[in-house]
Amino acid sequence: MTFANVGTLGAVPGRRDELVAQLTQRSDELREAGCLAYEVGVSDDAPDTVFVVELWQSADAHQASLELPQVRAAIAAARPLLSGEFGGFRFDVIGSPLRD
Amino acid sequence: MTFANVGTLGAVPGRRDELVAQLTQRSDELREAGCLAYEVGVSDDAPDTVFVVELWQSADAHQASLELPQVRAAIAAARPLLSGEFGGFRFDVIGSPLRD
Repeated sequence: MTFANVGTLGAVPGRRDELVAQLTQRSDELREAGCLAYEVGVSDDAPDTVFVVELWQSADAHQASLELPQVRAAIAAARPLLSGEFGGFRFDVIGSPLRD
Repeated sequence: MTFANVGTLGAVPGRRDELVAQLTQRSDELREAGCLAYEVGVSDDAPDTVFVVELWQSADAHQASLELPQVRAAIAAARPLLSGEFGGFRFDVIGSPLRD
């Protein structure tokens, strides 16, 4: 069952765009691990926040990805850019009006 | 610029699955209006909540879609199923590690 992980990451003030650059570095390993979509963005309404929408083939695929060396390295590289504020939610996808 | 609208919709207790069914009714009009993805789901952690991730070609396309007769009818049909609790966030997509 497709799994969605949607989150907000607080950035250290002034370092949001570095965090965006870090999160958008090309990673074909993510797709190979079962990542279907990984959209990173920002909002004028929250200048120190990075937004992420992830879709995965399954919750297990997402969980397993966190142990990949490349993903662990990316998390470590992002850490100095994070304020420690996190938000968001996770859910199991049931369907879409765009497909049967 | 791709626009993301991510939300939680509180359902009247016991009517969550009706709300999911309503939101996942096939709608090719949404795609024609610029909707790139519209994923609807649920979570065991929040039994009276429906989760939605939408991606649109632009914020303007999303805003304009709210005036489409079919979308207005869908909103009206969903209203009796909603508890009135809403959450979520909107952002502009900057990029993805899955593409250059």
